[in-house]
Amino acid sequence: MADFSAPRGMRDFYPEDMVLRNRIFDSWRAAAVASGFEAYDSCVVESLELLKRKAGEEIVNQIYAFQDKGGREIALRAEMTPTLARMVAARQGSLRFPIKWFTIAQCFRYERMTRGRKREHYQLNLDIIGEEAVSGEAEVIYTAIAALRKMGVPDSAYRVHLSNRALLSELLLGLKIEEKFHQGAFIALDKKGKIPREEIEQILREEGLTDEACAAAFNLMEIRSLEEAEAIVGPDSPSIRRIRDLFELLDCYGIREQVVFDISVVRGLSYYTGIVFEAFDTQGAFRAIFGGGRYDNLLTTIGGKPTPAVGLGFGDVVIGEIIQALNLPDTRPQPENLFIGYMQEAQRKAATRLAASERAKGKHVTLQLHPQKPKAFFAAAGETATSAVFLGPDDVASGKARVKNMTTREETEIPLV
Amino acid sequence: MADFSAPRGMRDFYPEDMVLRNRIFDSWRAAAVASGFEAYDSCVVESLELLKRKAGEEIVNQIYAFQDKGGREIALRAEMTPTLARMVAARQGSLRFPIKWFTIAQCFRYERMTRGRKREHYQLNLDIIGEEAVSGEAEVIYTAIAALRKMGVPDSAYRVHLSNRALLSELLLGLKIEEKFHQGAFIALDKKGKIPREEIEQILREEGLTDEACAAAFNLMEIRSLEEAEAIVGPDSPSIRRIRDLFELLDCYGIREQVVFDISVVRGLSYYTGIVFEAFDTQGAFRAIFGGGRYDNLLTTIGGKPTPAVGLGFGDVVIGEIIQALNLPDTRPQPENLFIGYMQEAQRKAATRLAASERAKGKHVTLQLHPQKPKAFFAAAGETATSAVFLGPDDVASGKARVKNMTTREETEIPLV
Repeated sequence: MADFSAPRGMRDFYPEDMVLRNRIFDSWRAAAVASGFEAYDSCVVESLELLKRKAGEEIVNQIYAFQDKGGREIALRAEMTPTLARMVAARQGSLRFPIKWFTIAQCFRYERMTRGRKREHYQLNLDIIGEEAVSGEAEVIYTAIAALRKMGVPDSAYRVHLSNRALLSELLLGLKIEEKFHQGAFIALDKKGKIPREEIEQILREEGLTDEACAAAFNLMEIRSLEEAEAIVGPDSPSIRRIRDLFELLDCYGIREQVVFDISVVRGLSYYTGIVFEAFDTQGAFRAIFGGGRYDNLLTTIGGKPTPAVGLGFGDVVIGEIIQALNLPDTRPQPENLFIGYMQEAQRKAATRLAASERAKGKHVTLQLHPQKPKAFFAAAGETATSAVFLGPDDVASGKARVKNMTTREETEIPLV
Repeated sequence: MADFSAPRGMRDFYPEDMVLRNRIFDSWRAAAVASGFEAYDSCVVESLELLKRKAGEEIVNQIYAFQDKGGREIALRAEMTPTLARMVAARQGSLRFPIKWFTIAQCFRYERMTRGRKREHYQLNLDIIGEEAVSGEAEVIYTAIAALRKMGVPDSAYRVHLSNRALLSELLLGLKIEEKFHQGAFIALDKKGKIPREEIEQILREEGLTDEACAAAFNLMEIRSLEEAEAIVGPDSPSIRRIRDLFELLDCYGIREQVVFDISVVRGLSYYTGIVFEAFDTQGAFRAIFGGGRYDNLLTTIGGKPTPAVGLGFGDVVIGEIIQALNLPDTRPQPENLFIGYMQEAQRKAATRLAASERAKGKHVTLQLHPQKPKAFFAAAGETATSAVFLGPDDVASGKARVKNMTTREETEIPLV
C-alpha cells in the first residue's frame, strides 16, 4: 500500500477544510482592504543570510535551509518580517510613506512534532511603515478585530492585552536598573509563566542584574493598572501618555472594551521598541490569536534607514481551533448555488446552455456532467444547492424548466435558452 | 550597500504588481467557483519520492529537492498534479465522484535564467475526477475561458487548439504503426517546431519506427481538418465522435468560435490519454496560456484505482505578459475608496469615529494617520480615492462634514458621529 499522506508536519486542505480556511483568509483580506492596507507578497523561498540577520538563535535552528542547484544558501521563510524589511529597504527612496501593507504568508518552522503542532502555518501580516503617530497602533489593532468580527467571532470571546516596552523601560530605570540590562530583562520577563521562576532569575543574573534588581523586576510584573504604573514613573511619563492616547482612539473605533492594559505583555522578539500587544481567547485555553507592536529599528538591522513602524502577525491555526472549539456559526453571506441536472443525454445540451446563461448573469452553477435519476440528483443537490433545476424530455419539449428553491421547496418557471 | 533583492529567479510583488496578480487570481477564483469547482490546497513542500514517481526525467532534474532536519527527502513541487493524485487516492473510498476541484498553486522549477524566465510561478489547476463524459472536457475549457473573460481578455485575443490523442493513435494504427510505438511517437511529434526534424526522426527511429513509418507520422501532422482525419480513420471513429460531441457542447457554452481542431496538439506529458488542448494568443507571440486534457491513468501510476479524469493548468506568467503587451483594460467593477484626513490633532478622534462607522457600513476607508495640510491630503487622495473627507475645526464644531466625489468634484454633507 502506497503512502498517500502529506510530508510530516504539512497540511492538506480538502474542500471541507477549505471552508474554515477561506472563512479566515477572506475575513483577513476583507478587513485589511477595508482599512486601506495594500496587498504585497514575495516568494516563500528567501536567502538564508537575510533570515539569519534578523532572527533570534532559536529561530535559526528551526529554519528549513538548503542549497539550490547553483549552490546558493536559501531557506523557507519562518516569518514575513525580514522579507518585508528587505522589500521596503530596496525602495526606501521612492515609496511614499507612511505605507500600509498586508500579506497572507505561509511560514515554516522545523519543530518537534508535539500535540499536533504543525511545521507550517499561514499568517496575516499587517504593517504600517513610516508613521510615528499612535494612530498606527490603533489602526492595526482595529483591523485585526474587524477581521475577527467578519469571521463571526463575538467581541466577548477574546481580549487584546496591551503594554508598552518603553513603560517597562521607564519602570526599570525607576528601580535603578541600567538601560543596558533592559533588553535582557524584557526577554527574561517574557518567559514568566512559561518556564520556572528560578530559570528566569538565572537568566537575569547572567544579564548582570543583582538579586535585588531581579526581585524588583519580578515585582513589576505584579502591576495591575496604569494608575499603579503611573504612581512609580510619575504623571509626565511619555509611555503612559501613549497608552492613554491609544485607548482613546480604540474607544473611537468602538473596540475599547476588548483591550486591556497588561504589564506582563513583553513579546519575546527583540525588535519591538514601544507598544506591544497580544490577543487571547477569554478563557485562556489557547495560545495567542495575534500579536504585534511597534518596531522602529527593524530596517536599520538589515542596512536600511531608520523608519518608525508598527505591525502584527495573526496566524491561521489558533483562530481556527477557537472557531471550531466554540462552534461559532459563520455569519458571512453565503452565495447562491444553482444545481442543474438532466435525465437523459438528450437534455444535456439544453442543460449546458442554461448553465452558461445563468453563469453569465453572475450565478454560481453546478452543472451535472452526466444523466442522472431525479432521486440521485436531488440527493446531491440537497447538500449544497440553494436551488435546483432537473431537466427531463417534457421540459425541453415545452421550452420551460422549473427551478426549485431548496429551502422553501417553492418552484418557479424559467424559459430554456 | 546590502543586497535587498529576492533570491535569483523568485518574484517580489509590490502593491503595484499585486494589481495585475489579483486581477488574474480573482478571475481564476471567481470563474472556478461560479462553475461549481471546490477549492483544495496542500503544502508547497512535497515528498521527493512522490514527485519522482510521476514526473518525467527532464522535470526531475529541475526539482528543488532537499533534506529536512529529520533526514527526509522533500522538495518544492514543480506541478500540482502528483499532489492532487495523492490526495484523491488517499480518500478514493469516501469521496463522492465525480469531484470538481481547483487550486492556485505556486510551483518551482530550477531552470537556466534566460529571457527573464522565472524559477517559480503560480498555476490555476482545474480537475474533474471520476467522470468519463465529454462534459468534463467542456466544463474545464469553458471555465478557463470564463476566467479570461473576467480578466478583460477579449474572445478574439486567443484560440484554444484541441486534438485527441486517441485520434492520433487511430491514425498511427491506420498507418500500421503498432500501439507500442505510439507513446514514443506522441512525445516526438510534440517536439515538432521546437527541435529540428532530423532530431525528431532520430527519436522516432530509436523508438523502433521504420523510415517509412517516420515519414507517415510526420505527414499526419499536416492534417488540417476533422474531415481529413475522418477520411483516414473512417466515419465510425470513436475519437472523432468525441471531438464532435465536445464541439457541440462548446457551442452550447457560447465558446465554439474560440476553439479550433489542431492535430499538432499532442502535449508532452505522457499521462494524457484522450482529448488534449492548449490555448495560444491569436498572434502566436507568446507561449501557451493554458493547457490540459484527459488523463485516465494518473491515479494508477501512484498506486490508486483506475479513475477517469480531465484537467488543465493555467499559469500566471504568460497571461500577465499578454494583458500587459495588449494593454487590456481591467473591466472588473472597482470598489469605492473613501479617504478621510484631518487638519489638526484635535480632529483625529472625529476622523477615527467617522472611519469606523463608514467601514462598519462595508465601505473601504483609508484613514490618514496624522494631521495634514489640505493640499497634501487631496494630492494623496487624488491617486486612488473615489471620494474624500477632510476635517477641520469648523467641521467638528458644526458636527457635519463634506464628502467630495473625486470624479465629479461634487460635495455632499454627512453628519459626524
